[in-house]
Amino acid sequence: MSSDSPVQSTRIVLASRPDGEPSADNFRIEAANLPSLADGQVLLRILYLSLDPYMRGRMSTAKSYADPVEVGDVMVGGTVGEVVESRHPKLSPGDRVLSYSGWQTHAVENGDHVRPLDASAAPLSTALGVLGMPGFTAYAGLLEIGKPKEGETVVVAAASGPVGSAVGQIAKIKGARAVGIAGGPDKCAHVRDELGFDAVVDHRSPTFADDLKAAVPDGIDVYFENVGGAVASAVFPLLNTYARVPVCGLVAQYNTTEAPEGPDRLPGFFRSVLTKSLTIRGFIQTEFVRALQADFRRDVAKWIAEGKIAYKEDIVDGIDNAPKAFMGLLAGRNFGKLVVRVAEEEQGGDGFSCRWS
Amino acid sequence: MSSDSPVQSTRIVLASRPDGEPSADNFRIEAANLPSLADGQVLLRILYLSLDPYMRGRMSTAKSYADPVEVGDVMVGGTVGEVVESRHPKLSPGDRVLSYSGWQTHAVENGDHVRPLDASAAPLSTALGVLGMPGFTAYAGLLEIGKPKEGETVVVAAASGPVGSAVGQIAKIKGARAVGIAGGPDKCAHVRDELGFDAVVDHRSPTFADDLKAAVPDGIDVYFENVGGAVASAVFPLLNTYARVPVCGLVAQYNTTEAPEGPDRLPGFFRSVLTKSLTIRGFIQTEFVRALQADFRRDVAKWIAEGKIAYKEDIVDGIDNAPKAFMGLLAGRNFGKLVVRVAEEEQGGDGFSCRWS
Repeated sequence: MSSDSPVQSTRIVLASRPDGEPSADNFRIEAANLPSLADGQVLLRILYLSLDPYMRGRMSTAKSYADPVEVGDVMVGGTVGEVVESRHPKLSPGDRVLSYSGWQTHAVENGDHVRPLDASAAPLSTALGVLGMPGFTAYAGLLEIGKPKEGETVVVAAASGPVGSAVGQIAKIKGARAVGIAGGPDKCAHVRDELGFDAVVDHRSPTFADDLKAAVPDGIDVYFENVGGAVASAVFPLLNTYARVPVCGLVAQYNTTEAPEGPDRLPGFFRSVLTKSLTIRGFIQTEFVRALQADFRRDVAKWIAEGKIAYKEDIVDGIDNAPKAFMGLLAGRNFGKLVVRVAEEEQGGDGFSCRWS
Repeated sequence: MSSDSPVQSTRIVLASRPDGEPSADNFRIEAANLPSLADGQVLLRILYLSLDPYMRGRMSTAKSYADPVEVGDVMVGGTVGEVVESRHPKLSPGDRVLSYSGWQTHAVENGDHVRPLDASAAPLSTALGVLGMPGFTAYAGLLEIGKPKEGETVVVAAASGPVGSAVGQIAKIKGARAVGIAGGPDKCAHVRDELGFDAVVDHRSPTFADDLKAAVPDGIDVYFENVGGAVASAVFPLLNTYARVPVCGLVAQYNTTEAPEGPDRLPGFFRSVLTKSLTIRGFIQTEFVRALQADFRRDVAKWIAEGKIAYKEDIVDGIDNAPKAFMGLLAGRNFGKLVVRVAEEEQGGDGFSCRWS
C-alpha cells in the first residue's frame, strides 16, 4: 500500500435518524477517500468492529451523555485495527491497536489515541468485549456502585451478553449469588451451564415474574440494570432494603419515542426508593476509567486465565452486515458479544478460539 | 404524685386508617391508666411532642420501613418529657429526657431508652427539631449522600421546614449555593432573609418552573428530595450530570392512594438517570445514627452558637390539638418545626426564645 494514491474506506454512515426502531434505510454504505497521513498519524486496516446498544442513542438527537452522530457521518464504534502505515514514532506497520474508528474498513487516526494490543496475550476481539468496554462496564458498575457483599443476591438481565455475563461471574467471584435473566432456552442454558450463574430465568416465559421471585428467595440486593422495560418492572418489587441499582443501559426502551400510557409509575417508584432506602445510580464506564482500568485489566485477565470468567462472542462477517446485525442486537437476536469481523487477521489464523494458557 | 393510684395519660389513638387525606375521624382522644413502675422504668410527664410528615406513613398498612400503628394504639412520635418518678438508677425526678412516647400526656418508659437533655444548653424543644431527628436527617442526607462541593448548587423544598432549613444552611456552610423552594410570600421571605438562602422560589407561583430555572443558572447538583410531586417534576429537568438526590420524604404524595393517570414517566426518568449519571438514594436517618450522630450534635450546636444556623418553631398548645395540627402539616399550613406543647415547663419559663450564648 502506498501513500501516493488515496486509500479508500468502505463505511456505513447514518443516512437518516430513526423514528423508533432503526431500519435499513437509516444506514448507507459508501466509499470515501482517506486523507494522506500527517505527522503522528497512523493508517489502520480495521479487523473487528464492536456493536453495542449505546449506539442507538448516538443515532438520535435526544440529549445524552455524548453528542449524536450527524446525518452523513460514519457510525461510531470501538474497533481493533492493524497499522498499515505509520507516521507515529511508537507505532509500526503490523501493530494491532484498539481505536474508536467506527463502522468502516480503514481509518486514519492520531497514534496517541490508539492503544497497542498484545495479540499473543488474548484474542484481539476480546479487546472489544470481556477485556474491553463491556467488561469494564460490568466491573466498574458492579464493584463501585453495586458493591455486592458475600451471600448477597445479584440479578442481571441480558445475562448472556458481554456486560451481563461479566457482571454475574464477577459477582460470584466476590462471593455473591448470581441470578441471570436471558431470553430463550439456549441463552438460559448458556448462562447456567457455561457461565456458572446460580440460577437463570427466561424473560420470555409467561410466568417470568413468578419464576424470578422463586429464583431469589432472599430478595435482590443488587440489580445491575442494563435493559429497563418489562424486566425491570418484575425486578423492582423484589429489591431488598438498601439494594443498589447501577444503571448502565436501557436497551428495551431505546427505540421508544414517547412516554408510554399510564398509570404513571414514577410516584410509586419514588415511594419504593424511600421505603427501601434504595440507591439508583446511572453511569457511563468512562467515569471510572482513570481510577479503575488498570485494576480491571489485571483482575479480569487473571480471572480468565484461572477459568473463573468465560465469555462468548457472536461474530458477523463483513462491514456491510453491520446494520442488520445491529438491528438484531436491539431486538435481542444476538447471542454473546456481537462483533463484526471487518477483515481477516493475516497472522495467527482463527482469533476466536481460546488461546489463554 | 403517688404510685398508689394509677396515673392517667390523655392520649390520641388511631381510630381508623385514612383513605387518602387524614381527617379528624381517624383520631380519637381517650384516657388510659398507666401501669405502675417496674425496675428500670420511669414515669414521664410529656412537655413537647414532635409532629412530622413520616407519621402519615405509620397510619397506613402499606409496606414501609417501619411497622404501622395499629388501630386503637397511641400515635407514635418523638417527645421531650420530665421524669416524675424513677426506678432507674441514673434518672431522677425533674430530669428532662428525649423519648419516643407518642401523642400522649404521660408515659412509662424504660429508662435505658430515653436520652437525658441539658435544658441549660438549648431550648428543650430543639431536641425535636434542629438538634433532633429533623436536623439530623438534613445533616446526614446532605453530607453523606448529597456531598455538596464548593460552588455547587443545592436545591431543597419545604425550605422553611425543619429539614429543609437545615439542609440549605448546612449547604452554605459547606460553600455551596443554597436555593430554597417554599409556599407563599411569608415562608419565602423567611427562607431568604432569616435563613440566608441565596435564592428562594415560591412553588405556588404560576411561573414556578420558570422561576426555578432562573434561580439555578448553573443547574442543580444536589436536590434534597423531601416533598415529591409537582415540585420534583420541575426540579428533575434541571439536574446536572452527576447530580445527587437524597430522598428522605415525599410529603406531597403521602395522601395519594393509587398511581396517578399517565403518561408513565418512569421510563423517561430512568433515561435521565442514565444519560446524566444521576444518583438517587432513599434514606431514613436511623441508618446513619451510629456513624454520624456525635458529629452532628457537635457541629450543629457549634453552628447555632456561631449564628450560622437559625431555626423556627411552630408551637401548638395542647395534646387535643395534635390531630388538627398534623393535618395542617401535611397540607403545608405550618410554618417552621411543628411541635405540640403538651404541658408547660415548670422551670425556666419560656423555652422558645433563643438562649444560646
